[in-house]
Amino acid sequence: MTEILNIFGNIYLFIYFSFSCTSKASMAGILRRAFGLKQTLRFAKVSPPCRLLAPENNSAASCNLYVSGSGARALTTKKAEKSKSAAPERLPFSRVTEEDVEYFRSILPGRTITDPDLLESNNVDWLKSVKGSSEVLLRPQTTAEVSQILRYCNSRNLAVNPQGGNTGLVGGSVPVYDEIILSTSLMNNVLSFDGVSGILTCQAGCVLENLSLYLEERDYIMPLDLGAKGSCHIGGNVATNAGGLRLLRYGSLRGTVLGLEVVLADGRVLDCLATLRKDNTGYDLKQLFIGSEGTLGVITAVSILCPRKPVSVNVVFLGCETFEQLLKTFQLCRGMLGEILSAFEFLDSECMRLLNTHLKLPNPISDCPFYIVIETAGSDPNHDSEKLHHFLEEAMNTCVVTDGTVATEKSKIKALWSMRERVTEALTHDGFTYKYDISLPVEQIYQLVTDMRAHLGDRARSVVGYGHVGVLSAWT
Amino acid sequence: MTEILNIFGNIYLFIYFSFSCTSKASMAGILRRAFGLKQTLRFAKVSPPCRLLAPENNSAASCNLYVSGSGARALTTKKAEKSKSAAPERLPFSRVTEEDVEYFRSILPGRTITDPDLLESNNVDWLKSVKGSSEVLLRPQTTAEVSQILRYCNSRNLAVNPQGGNTGLVGGSVPVYDEIILSTSLMNNVLSFDGVSGILTCQAGCVLENLSLYLEERDYIMPLDLGAKGSCHIGGNVATNAGGLRLLRYGSLRGTVLGLEVVLADGRVLDCLATLRKDNTGYDLKQLFIGSEGTLGVITAVSILCPRKPVSVNVVFLGCETFEQLLKTFQLCRGMLGEILSAFEFLDSECMRLLNTHLKLPNPISDCPFYIVIETAGSDPNHDSEKLHHFLEEAMNTCVVTDGTVATEKSKIKALWSMRERVTEALTHDGFTYKYDISLPVEQIYQLVTDMRAHLGDRARSVVGYGHVGVLSAWT
Repeated sequence: MTEILNIFGNIYLFIYFSFSCTSKASMAGILRRAFGLKQTLRFAKVSPPCRLLAPENNSAASCNLYVSGSGARALTTKKAEKSKSAAPERLPFSRVTEEDVEYFRSILPGRTITDPDLLESNNVDWLKSVKGSSEVLLRPQTTAEVSQILRYCNSRNLAVNPQGGNTGLVGGSVPVYDEIILSTSLMNNVLSFDGVSGILTCQAGCVLENLSLYLEERDYIMPLDLGAKGSCHIGGNVATNAGGLRLLRYGSLRGTVLGLEVVLADGRVLDCLATLRKDNTGYDLKQLFIGSEGTLGVITAVSILCPRKPVSVNVVFLGCETFEQLLKTFQLCRGMLGEILSAFEFLDSECMRLLNTHLKLPNPISDCPFYIVIETAGSDPNHDSEKLHHFLEEAMNTCVVTDGTVATEKSKIKALWSMRERVTEALTHDGFTYKYDISLPVEQIYQLVTDMRAHLGDRARSVVGYGHVGVLSAWT
Repeated sequence: MTEILNIFGNIYLFIYFSFSCTSKASMAGILRRAFGLKQTLRFAKVSPPCRLLAPENNSAASCNLYVSGSGARALTTKKAEKSKSAAPERLPFSRVTEEDVEYFRSILPGRTITDPDLLESNNVDWLKSVKGSSEVLLRPQTTAEVSQILRYCNSRNLAVNPQGGNTGLVGGSVPVYDEIILSTSLMNNVLSFDGVSGILTCQAGCVLENLSLYLEERDYIMPLDLGAKGSCHIGGNVATNAGGLRLLRYGSLRGTVLGLEVVLADGRVLDCLATLRKDNTGYDLKQLFIGSEGTLGVITAVSILCPRKPVSVNVVFLGCETFEQLLKTFQLCRGMLGEILSAFEFLDSECMRLLNTHLKLPNPISDCPFYIVIETAGSDPNHDSEKLHHFLEEAMNTCVVTDGTVATEKSKIKALWSMRERVTEALTHDGFTYKYDISLPVEQIYQLVTDMRAHLGDRARSVVGYGHVGVLSAWT
């Protein structure tokens, strides 16, 4: 479930808590809540409801559900009866016929996939918790092809599921029923890059990490970074308004995305692919598509403002005894690191245990109840390290942190970051994951984890909390 | 005319060029262009077209026109015949009757103004170049009153002109005909401020400078700053998506405005007054109202994310010989001041002459063809002054700048800033001002001024260029 409950401006925190169930009953209440939520507005919902891929050795009832502004979806277990109440109803879309497939083959020769084996990975989500039953995968290369597909599907009343890198954690990237999967994976060209302004224009299917590598060679970076960067598409990032690890420094995609090209459901192409930093020449229509999760159209191209690669980057991994101390560290950090603070992330000891157990990642410091990852990015290595030194000295002297390690070298920075970035991956090895993404006033957020632990008791294998504790650092 | 032609991402530049005409003919072509543009979509356009307030000793034909995404308006001179082609046609709105006024008096006792003397200042724009002929000024204090007014006007088909501080430079804040003026000037309460997150929620009629003073006492600042801060309303800032002097550092209102309360034309209240830093729970409807200039509704309340007051602020005033050197200084600045660069503004020698002549502001350095105002804002005064020192040394050594002065003290900072902020005011003393606000690739922007000077010759009293040369500095 992705739900933003509340967020007090620049002090906010995303918390993901994840637990594995050993009892069907424990999920019942949560499922009931989810069932009550209104249907998704996504392009289409079709035929047999998505199955949950419960492993054979796990008898748990599990679910993946998500709530966004546009609706909610809850899915049944593989072994459970296919319950209509567990998924949004299949709306009265047409079924794909042989003639339809013929048409798609005529416009996308070799890129109209109907082989079930090849379709498998597109029908299943990254967490392997939900599965659709699409029988057609279309892989357009151009905006014109996307337009042709949607115009046709619209005229034939066929349901379409736009799909990017299929890295979503809330089941939103795979079909529920037999929707046609429209994948952007072959729309992966950089269209232009301006080395003076830092504006990148590219097709929606470009993989985030490929764009990052492309830009790094040109002394720029992408304004967003995610754990899923190796697979996720920029179009999907925009469609879901992904935040990620750089949100604190470079702000949200609402500011960095300068333009979008979108194909509407009826095939019309909406060209908002401007490259203006400030465009007051009309209503900012592109904003409607950012975060709309494909409900209003398929994003086919993105122009985005990219920051210069920082001259100096440091990462600190700290441990502290209580969540209160963690928040004190955050306040200290805001004041003393000021404009060079670029990330402040945390994980709890349960996350560390899972990282150790399932991914064999050793704890870089001594065992603590809470861990913090702080990143600084600035233009003067001496000034940055001086600020960092003063901060660490103060943090140690006032006992808000109990242990820590600093990295300035690229490989060590990467290793420290992986302690935070790979938590989600570690969770997938611990059984079925039930994941929330919640914003709350920072003082109250961890209470949610402790309350949930107390509430679930031994019915959950683990309940963990990790995420961002953020302000736009340039503002501190 | 406010027109964003193009802007290459984070390298952009606003240029205002202003000239006074001595010949009617010289304006003809420009007016003709304006007449051809489509009508404004503002709430209403009514009865006798707005008169241009030409001073008696100036025989020039003049105009004020604006183009935004929503349309265009061009106005005739006072002496010229009232030309229907010079203004958008009065749409078939009802005329205000005595019964209407009675109704307004019943809901806004003492705040329904019909005295022509009291209405005068609300009918005339700040540049005193256009004048409407509204006979009713309404001064609501609450959202409920705004809702009542609009519901009534909608049912009676009466045209309404929402008005904030009436500081707009493009004639958009005053009526064209007899629209009812709905002023937000009495909606000036701070509704809440959270000293931890920096989120301010206030009514739309709060004056920007009052909000700044309120926040400074609480160790915060507003994320936007304008020359008109002493009069402009935050609601008008949002409705026009004002950029201002802090755009470079804190980004646009699309990022800093977290929520809006808006009353639609039929009186319905749209409550998007969230205080979420990242809200993915639906379409971001408030974005539609930012920059929509009152065409979609009247903004009644704003919640906005405010940055902390920087620990250290420095302002440098520099002179250089050519626009090319100015751009080189900008590049040098981006690299050497990095994350502490918070503003980079320029003015040309013609602006300086007008500041000297009309406002008696002395040039703080020796005469140069171009002047630059650079501001830094950071968390460590020593680091900031060291970065600044290195930058200035390099700028002088490489001869990109020829003279300069630095201010760290508040009153001197204010004095240096006024050289940039008061250019618009100086222009108003030089005759009729014809003002463009244009974004172009930074290398080409000043060519516009020199071309226009050559084109107009002695038909214009002066053609000047000034504005921002910007990147989001936190990114450099």
